[in-house]
Amino acid sequence: MNRKPIRVGVLGATGAVGQRFISLLDTNPWFTITAVAASERSTGARYADACTWRLPGDCPDSVRDLPVQPCEPGLDCDIVFSALPADIARDVEVQMAAAGYGVFSNASAHRMDPDTPLLIPEVNPDHLALIPIQREKRGWDKGFIVTNPNCSTIGLTLALKPLHDAYGVRIVMVTTMQALSGAGYPGVPSLDILDNVIPYIKGEEEKMIQEPRKILGDFVPTEGKVRPAFMLISPSCNRVAAIDGHLETVSVELEREAAVEEVIAAFRNFTSLPYELGCPSAVNPTIIVRDEPDRPQTRRDRDAGNGMTITVGRVRPCEVLEHKFVVLSHNTIRGAAGASILNAELMVAQGMI
Amino acid sequence: MNRKPIRVGVLGATGAVGQRFISLLDTNPWFTITAVAASERSTGARYADACTWRLPGDCPDSVRDLPVQPCEPGLDCDIVFSALPADIARDVEVQMAAAGYGVFSNASAHRMDPDTPLLIPEVNPDHLALIPIQREKRGWDKGFIVTNPNCSTIGLTLALKPLHDAYGVRIVMVTTMQALSGAGYPGVPSLDILDNVIPYIKGEEEKMIQEPRKILGDFVPTEGKVRPAFMLISPSCNRVAAIDGHLETVSVELEREAAVEEVIAAFRNFTSLPYELGCPSAVNPTIIVRDEPDRPQTRRDRDAGNGMTITVGRVRPCEVLEHKFVVLSHNTIRGAAGASILNAELMVAQGMI
Amino acid sequence: MNRKPIRVGVLGATGAVGQRFISLLDTNPWFTITAVAASERSTGARYADACTWRLPGDCPDSVRDLPVQPCEPGLDCDIVFSALPADIARDVEVQMAAAGYGVFSNASAHRMDPDTPLLIPEVNPDHLALIPIQREKRGWDKGFIVTNPNCSTIGLTLALKPLHDAYGVRIVMVTTMQALSGAGYPGVPSLDILDNVIPYIKGEEEKMIQEPRKILGDFVPTEGKVRPAFMLISPSCNRVAAIDGHLETVSVELEREAAVEEVIAAFRNFTSLPYELGCPSAVNPTIIVRDEPDRPQTRRDRDAGNGMTITVGRVRPCEVLEHKFVVLSHNTIRGAAGASILNAELMVAQGMI
Amino acid sequence: MNRKPIRVGVLGATGAVGQRFISLLDTNPWFTITAVAASERSTGARYADACTWRLPGDCPDSVRDLPVQPCEPGLDCDIVFSALPADIARDVEVQMAAAGYGVFSNASAHRMDPDTPLLIPEVNPDHLALIPIQREKRGWDKGFIVTNPNCSTIGLTLALKPLHDAYGVRIVMVTTMQALSGAGYPGVPSLDILDNVIPYIKGEEEKMIQEPRKILGDFVPTEGKVRPAFMLISPSCNRVAAIDGHLETVSVELEREAAVEEVIAAFRNFTSLPYELGCPSAVNPTIIVRDEPDRPQTRRDRDAGNGMTITVGRVRPCEVLEHKFVVLSHNTIRGAAGASILNAELMVAQGMI
Repeated sequence: MNRKPIRVGVLGATGAVGQRFISLLDTNPWFTITAVAASERSTGARYADACTWRLPGDCPDSVRDLPVQPCEPGLDCDIVFSALPADIARDVEVQMAAAGYGVFSNASAHRMDPDTPLLIPEVNPDHLALIPIQREKRGWDKGFIVTNPNCSTIGLTLALKPLHDAYGVRIVMVTTMQALSGAGYPGVPSLDILDNVIPYIKGEEEKMIQEPRKILGDFVPTEGKVRPAFMLISPSCNRVAAIDGHLETVSVELEREAAVEEVIAAFRNFTSLPYELGCPSAVNPTIIVRDEPDRPQTRRDRDAGNGMTITVGRVRPCEVLEHKFVVLSHNTIRGAAGASILNAELMVAQGMI
Repeated sequence: MNRKPIRVGVLGATGAVGQRFISLLDTNPWFTITAVAASERSTGARYADACTWRLPGDCPDSVRDLPVQPCEPGLDCDIVFSALPADIARDVEVQMAAAGYGVFSNASAHRMDPDTPLLIPEVNPDHLALIPIQREKRGWDKGFIVTNPNCSTIGLTLALKPLHDAYGVRIVMVTTMQALSGAGYPGVPSLDILDNVIPYIKGEEEKMIQEPRKILGDFVPTEGKVRPAFMLISPSCNRVAAIDGHLETVSVELEREAAVEEVIAAFRNFTSLPYELGCPSAVNPTIIVRDEPDRPQTRRDRDAGNGMTITVGRVRPCEVLEHKFVVLSHNTIRGAAGASILNAELMVAQGMI
Repeated sequence: MNRKPIRVGVLGATGAVGQRFISLLDTNPWFTITAVAASERSTGARYADACTWRLPGDCPDSVRDLPVQPCEPGLDCDIVFSALPADIARDVEVQMAAAGYGVFSNASAHRMDPDTPLLIPEVNPDHLALIPIQREKRGWDKGFIVTNPNCSTIGLTLALKPLHDAYGVRIVMVTTMQALSGAGYPGVPSLDILDNVIPYIKGEEEKMIQEPRKILGDFVPTEGKVRPAFMLISPSCNRVAAIDGHLETVSVELEREAAVEEVIAAFRNFTSLPYELGCPSAVNPTIIVRDEPDRPQTRRDRDAGNGMTITVGRVRPCEVLEHKFVVLSHNTIRGAAGASILNAELMVAQGMI
Repeated sequence: MNRKPIRVGVLGATGAVGQRFISLLDTNPWFTITAVAASERSTGARYADACTWRLPGDCPDSVRDLPVQPCEPGLDCDIVFSALPADIARDVEVQMAAAGYGVFSNASAHRMDPDTPLLIPEVNPDHLALIPIQREKRGWDKGFIVTNPNCSTIGLTLALKPLHDAYGVRIVMVTTMQALSGAGYPGVPSLDILDNVIPYIKGEEEKMIQEPRKILGDFVPTEGKVRPAFMLISPSCNRVAAIDGHLETVSVELEREAAVEEVIAAFRNFTSLPYELGCPSAVNPTIIVRDEPDRPQTRRDRDAGNGMTITVGRVRPCEVLEHKFVVLSHNTIRGAAGASILNAELMVAQGMI
């Protein structure tokens, strides 16, 4: 890409996902961070002072001296990445889009809005056709909101996509074992998780039921909206003592019969539009299938493809449905900040930004 | 019980499950440990010297000075509890039974033998009717072998029992998150499990498919054998970083419709024959149903009822099958040593020993 | 003790230490809980509703229906145990004592007040002579404040006591590896401690420098105060990923030479006044010395003596000072709630309550 | 460096440290792996088949197809890195050196041999003057053995070096909190370390007493040997639940007085000969001093400088000795494989290879 880096801002820049955005954007060749915004408590301070950096290593030099600004129009940038909590994101993201910013949001607030793309670039790039509809409906000029799915949804949906395309997925049973970073910071108290498993994550199962159906749904031009995929999904969500990486056991029922080898081939042959378009965060392959009986493992596989590749393993027949397998994805990269950045890269690559 | 304590031995007494047997038997009013046996490496030594005690606290005084003997007939006791590895258990347990010992085995070797009870006293006490058949077939005089199920099977099967009795269980999807002690000692290397999940336990899924069907099956007197329950079970077994306690997410399909309240009532009304008979290891209730959205939790609930109670929670409709819930059981007490001891207590209470 | 149980209240009853107080007092034969108090947020509610019980098992039945009251005079009880944060404890505890309550405080607020006993019953029971001085100075009629030391101080000081009595301790180097429960709830975020060590605990080293000197100091009747022991203490405090149990490596320089065997004998011969007086929380021995090279270990030894015994191991010569050893104590029992209750028992046994 | 990469072999290539060697050498511009050797059990197999890769990601492609050879002369390479257990290393390393190989050993077998350098390139590069003496004494032509210190020694010694040069270190008290990978694989059983601390590591304290004195000692040309630094060291070694990274609390007594600021400046001004010589594994700075009160932390700082930088923090006066601080180093990179590779790079840079 022979153009100048695009000027970007991060909303909620001091939190756990915000730091991940900063960390990934710092080395992204297409974007340059020119604004950081956070809650009132932090505004005015230097970013390095306002933020207790909790990722390995240090806060990148490029943002250390940026002043923390309020989360409102006036930020010196063209697009913003939102790591805001859902309740705050609801209004702020609309204000930003109305003021002309492109908003790439990791928040859940607008994911299920009918006029808003819930985007995984490898899965449903055509849903970006919602953007002109969104602008028209909301009266926005050049601003927009594009969302990425929940961190537990994204690994599952990426794994379902090639199966759905080839054989039609009708039923999904999924049990998650989700990492601590998914709860943000301070998040899960250590007394709640050491030598323990918590079989509940508030709001998570609801998201896993809805979001894959929208993402795997068809954009219907004549209706100007996405018709959700018809698919029953039963999730059981658990929190386990891992830093990063959501592991999920999955059983699926397909519309058309497929041998195990065909399922594996579907995973392996899955191609990536953003990779073909040269998006810097895109990886190839998007899906790795491991042959060892005991892989993927959370710590050993979460960083595959810089955290953007998902890893599938144990593909085998299910005693009840048709096939079962295990899928792992890095929840704060593939499942949050990296996902949002790849969404922006797709729009850049397609000339939409 | 106004009789003298029964003299018992422990096979494989120095290992992880063996120590749990020692620990539980030490305070059991019906039994007194008079013999400990282990592999050749240890024989001859005092138990306290041969065994590196790894449970909290110290090796009980009552066994410290017992000499470790070989795992073969000649032990000074009437019944033996077997914590042997399956491959060794296969022959040794038969030799012991042939020599007249009652053998209560935690090993998998004989669980699926058609003439051998795979027993959970609260679930299938009538399967003890296999004992005379076993004796006759094998030519044993007073010896016998009674087995208890795998640690991941037992919590699941106890939870299925009241549902199966009331509504008929046809389909079971289950994902386990199993504790480290289930792998024995040294078991899982710490480098394999800290900040990690391993989505595989060798041989475990096979056991979870077979064992519940045998336990929930009907003893058919005319055939002299157990007809397995007709039930599809699809397990996905995972190892997580917890010391004790197997947590399982379960979805079930029932033959006859049941409201969530009825399912909960079935759990709560479940009664226990061994408790009614006064067995000292039996607890009441056998099944606790918790109302909080985030329970049971491994560390907080595994010790309920001295580790003999299972805890169920999150009973709710399943989007695919009919109901789903979470079940937790203590894998080395309810799921191993305590299970085997309760089996022995049942036979004592019923005058079979 | 043939008297009626003493009516007690717990201040800060819903927090981590407060729950430990409730749990221990529930089975204490000398006390009965008649009042629970907490911050305004909780007052008015039933205890069981106001409190998310986080210890293993369930909230004891005896307190479930008690109404949560404000932390101020008017509580229906004779003595109160304080699990309040230091900043709140400062005033509230004085108000309670002024109103006639005996206050046993786990807070740091008044530990170093010259007229206030910083008490470990096995170590400095004579410091209770401060009580009449405290009352006179403060104009209190029958109320008083007695404090127990910081959780990291108490294990160290109990271990130093027999050495100090026999040989005089002049110098102490100590590095702690402290459990998560020491930080209360929610306390340490899991993202801060999994696969990690934090080499810092705010305020902890200061307490470890001061408190042992006061506890091991002499009460001087003519001066009406405690003269601190002359002793240099250099602590380094660390947080590690353990639920309960503070492990400490200790090196000491003694005034009078002692062989390793003599040091061990001093530990083993240590006697306990509260045990001799029949205090129900007192244990015998107070100090266990283990011979294995790799003990005490946090998880395996913290529950010795119901959490009231401290365990010492690896007693050996130090290459720099004279001797070194390892000491472990249960931080929320021996180091907090159990300590405070034992303080109260001592006063009861001595007829001071 | 404009020369062809040097052909290297790895002894003990399938183990934990061996894999770390492979991983680091794979991307090292000065070396190319041409031989892998391991115990008889593995010889003959492809490396990828013989080795269960346990580091994150996959076994590097460059070694997948190398045949595993026996650990004896005949390997097709010029130098070998030894990750052998000490008892096997003792003879094998001598055989290899005698056969003309340069041996860079992470094993403890020959560290304290008077004619063998115990080398940290930033600390005692002049000790390489032992090589000709070693060759002469042993009758070796071009082979040699160079060792690197124990993983817990290296962080400590790097931190002591600038203080020793500037002020003279006389006394060192050190307590370690060591990571699991230091014990190799399978190493520490998970049941021994989850929710636990083990206050003992076999042989570790002995090494920490001896090794720093040799490394910080003076090579005396007239005597042809190293005169150990006169320094009292008292170590207490503990195992904690962290994957990688040894954290140590250290107190030191200096010969010449120094202010805290001077100590910090000494750390910060520490220069690195191998960095100046352009060694690819050398980093700048070698020592990072952090100002935050709660750093270094094991997980957050171990990867500084690709695991080759050590991090110091909490530099402050000691109540007993003069100064105390915390030091962290990555035990399998800086403390093992990376250390050995840097040793080799130094010799290459100095034209000795």
